Amino acid sequence: MQFSASQIAPLISGVIEGDASVLVSNFGKIESAQPGDLAFLANPKYESFAYTTKASILLVANTFAPKQPVASTLIRVEDPYAALAQLMQLVEQQSAPRLQGISPKAHIADDVELGEDVYVAPFAVIEPGAKIGRGCQVHSFAYIGRGVTLGEGTVIYPQVTLYHGVQVGARCIIHAGAVLGSDGFGFAPESDGYHKIPQLGSVLVEDDVEIGANTCIDRAVMDNTVISRGVKLDNLIQIAHNCEVGEHTVMASQVGLAGSSAVGKWCRFGGQVGIGGHLTIGDRVEMAGQTGVLGNVASGTALMGSPGMPLREAMRSFVIQPKLPDMYRRLQALEKELAELKQQL
Amino acid sequence: MQFSASQIAPLISGVIEGDASVLVSNFGKIESAQPGDLAFLANPKYESFAYTTKASILLVANTFAPKQPVASTLIRVEDPYAALAQLMQLVEQQSAPRLQGISPKAHIADDVELGEDVYVAPFAVIEPGAKIGRGCQVHSFAYIGRGVTLGEGTVIYPQVTLYHGVQVGARCIIHAGAVLGSDGFGFAPESDGYHKIPQLGSVLVEDDVEIGANTCIDRAVMDNTVISRGVKLDNLIQIAHNCEVGEHTVMASQVGLAGSSAVGKWCRFGGQVGIGGHLTIGDRVEMAGQTGVLGNVASGTALMGSPGMPLREAMRSFVIQPKLPDMYRRLQALEKELAELKQQL
Amino acid sequence: MQFSASQIAPLISGVIEGDASVLVSNFGKIESAQPGDLAFLANPKYESFAYTTKASILLVANTFAPKQPVASTLIRVEDPYAALAQLMQLVEQQSAPRLQGISPKAHIADDVELGEDVYVAPFAVIEPGAKIGRGCQVHSFAYIGRGVTLGEGTVIYPQVTLYHGVQVGARCIIHAGAVLGSDGFGFAPESDGYHKIPQLGSVLVEDDVEIGANTCIDRAVMDNTVISRGVKLDNLIQIAHNCEVGEHTVMASQVGLAGSSAVGKWCRFGGQVGIGGHLTIGDRVEMAGQTGVLGNVASGTALMGSPGMPLREAMRSFVIQPKLPDMYRRLQALEKELAELKQQL
Repeated sequence: MQFSASQIAPLISGVIEGDASVLVSNFGKIESAQPGDLAFLANPKYESFAYTTKASILLVANTFAPKQPVASTLIRVEDPYAALAQLMQLVEQQSAPRLQGISPKAHIADDVELGEDVYVAPFAVIEPGAKIGRGCQVHSFAYIGRGVTLGEGTVIYPQVTLYHGVQVGARCIIHAGAVLGSDGFGFAPESDGYHKIPQLGSVLVEDDVEIGANTCIDRAVMDNTVISRGVKLDNLIQIAHNCEVGEHTVMASQVGLAGSSAVGKWCRFGGQVGIGGHLTIGDRVEMAGQTGVLGNVASGTALMGSPGMPLREAMRSFVIQPKLPDMYRRLQALEKELAELKQQL
Repeated sequence: MQFSASQIAPLISGVIEGDASVLVSNFGKIESAQPGDLAFLANPKYESFAYTTKASILLVANTFAPKQPVASTLIRVEDPYAALAQLMQLVEQQSAPRLQGISPKAHIADDVELGEDVYVAPFAVIEPGAKIGRGCQVHSFAYIGRGVTLGEGTVIYPQVTLYHGVQVGARCIIHAGAVLGSDGFGFAPESDGYHKIPQLGSVLVEDDVEIGANTCIDRAVMDNTVISRGVKLDNLIQIAHNCEVGEHTVMASQVGLAGSSAVGKWCRFGGQVGIGGHLTIGDRVEMAGQTGVLGNVASGTALMGSPGMPLREAMRSFVIQPKLPDMYRRLQALEKELAELKQQL
Repeated sequence: MQFSASQIAPLISGVIEGDASVLVSNFGKIESAQPGDLAFLANPKYESFAYTTKASILLVANTFAPKQPVASTLIRVEDPYAALAQLMQLVEQQSAPRLQGISPKAHIADDVELGEDVYVAPFAVIEPGAKIGRGCQVHSFAYIGRGVTLGEGTVIYPQVTLYHGVQVGARCIIHAGAVLGSDGFGFAPESDGYHKIPQLGSVLVEDDVEIGANTCIDRAVMDNTVISRGVKLDNLIQIAHNCEVGEHTVMASQVGLAGSSAVGKWCRFGGQVGIGGHLTIGDRVEMAGQTGVLGNVASGTALMGSPGMPLREAMRSFVIQPKLPDMYRRLQALEKELAELKQQL
């Protein structure tokens, strides 16, 4: 499909500068775009490419004042990145087939409540007592356990397992292979081995949460493991039993939270971060990748290292780290020198 | 469901102190319990809550000597934590529906041996030559490969894959998405790329093992990768080919063992620990989260850090770590000072 | 099945020394082999076992000159390890049942193109527009999304999810639970939360790639996330959107690559390595397990530590690490001593 600048501009409240009839059929990066591509300029670092790009259309900010001639047709908007995301959503909506209907090849218990416009794919399983909200998608090989609830418009991709009693809010996206509600890792050590502590709680996922592929969220021993509104979890993350993740916190891949820890709102964790058990992490905490946390963390802190240090301290410390052997030699030399000097005196 | 203290006490060999007719319907934590909750006091640190808790029933040790009046009905037992676990198990048994029968929607090869009281869910697959022990549960989307054996009472949750020939003992629990018996990561480097070494061994899981969601255990190149009796593995763990994990060892989430390493008995690994290949780790070894191990480890050792150091050394070293830049400056200053002093003399 | 030395030798262009009629039925390690086993000697470190091994047949190099008598029948070959791999492949081919046919219990869209000799298992799903090359295997619970293409001879194990549009080359092996083409982790922060950036690109996997169990490869925001020819990825690895992994690079388990990073050819990463976003890693780069990378890395570099240091520097630094507290004390002592000395003078 091709679109002209004059078709695109009204969709994003944009103003055209240049040839309004030029056609695009694809997105491209400003530095590598080809004719027929639409590119965007958001980061001022990339401004120089605006004068050389082959993109047919370039989204720019209203405030953009070119210092040289620009060959592309410009569409001026308030926020080029947001406008781009908006256009991408339109393309996605047009290109994705509308999924509808309940496959006769799905296995759905008799008493399941299915909202309007629900899609249930072949070989999906929905167990007794589940409630599937309006407009949900339940893909092939999704397992919706006994008594699970899904809010409106939630998408469950293939191979997802929701154990019994898990509650998922509205407009959530759960990617393939994610597991919610498996037993928390709770055992009582006895002389003959570890005895299982039953995990009688569940998992509560609030609205607008996205959960990545093969991520695991364990059910609580009592009460709920809680993933709050707007949280975004990447792939292969571990959230142990009884954890709470605050609103709008984002975690990159392979982060692990040990049991009963609470993470605040608007935090951002890099990949492979590890948080110990029974800890409290404040709001707007930032962690670099591979940070390890053994104690509580105050709101607004930025950490790095394992165990985690304040970011600046960590950066300075890591610069010196390779000098350690040299420092050790110099320390020994100083001791010797000083001892010799003292003897001479 | 509600239960009175007089109904509960005999189940756990307890002795009632206070109103034996008081009713509870839920478990609660001593510090946040509400009327109608049963709570417990095991850790002496929490004793003060015994005098303020709203729990209707409080499990306490036989030896508990209150220093103030307690409002809750007490049930005195030998070990309050173990008694709690016992009660939770009873509740779980009562609340979980009894799963039974072989679904006609499952795909089961003709020659599969199914024990008595086996549950096979819709869309489970059991390949030729498999043997399913008495009382096993095989959930939807579980894949039981050719010649796999399951001991009595083992539970295979949804989306689990057991490749051909994997042997699982009795009373094991394998959580959703776990993969046992995938090919070990074995390749011979050649000038045109890596050539696959066939992985002809298998995986042997002994009795009473629990394996977490999305955990992976690779098949051996020859012989077996072995998970011994009583081992508990959390979610997202990697056990490479030809590893052996000793009895009653527990590993938290995201631990990784490289190929051909042997871990002893009764070890405890924190999350994200990484063990190199071809290593021997002794018995009762403890590792803090994110520990990295590059060499053999003697029994009884506690490690921390990457690469791992003895725990106390590591703790002391980490305290000094942020002072490194300061130390470097002070070292330079000393050198200068000493040089100046020597010149003056 | 049993094979004689005279049956085996021609399969691997070997020359027999000793009893050509001796029979073997299994592979064994030179140090623990039993009568009836075939073992091999490739690493000179193991030569002493050649004189004590109970293996009935021993594969050795043409150049092997025994210093003592060897009881086993020898088969001399150019490269014993390669010959072993070849024999193991023959055994595997003979022992694995030939999988063939399209199960009527699979769900395959009408317009799917199926090559010759394709195997599709019960409860596999193949969505519209997919093309399955000659000789592919699609196992139970594999999800082949809309428009996916599989090259000739590719094997898709159970529980694999290939989201729409993913392209996989020839002779690839994708292990159970792997997810290719899930949405990249892209969100625009707004005051009311994170807004999803549609991920309109896809994943391109070239020929001869092996992907481990539960590994995740996200689709690109535009264009493709690329896994090049001959790459081998172990289990539980995360490849974020828009990454590129160069030819013949191998990564051990639990490695994580953040978005838009490019890794060169013939690299080797140990387990749990973490690579930051938007980085360029050269060719033939080696990383020890748990290495963390925050910047670009030149070709031929070997790294260790988090953040990563050149391998030798890292090794030296880690040796000194436990001495840090001691160094600190000695530094303080020196300062005091020097100050006292200066006062005395």
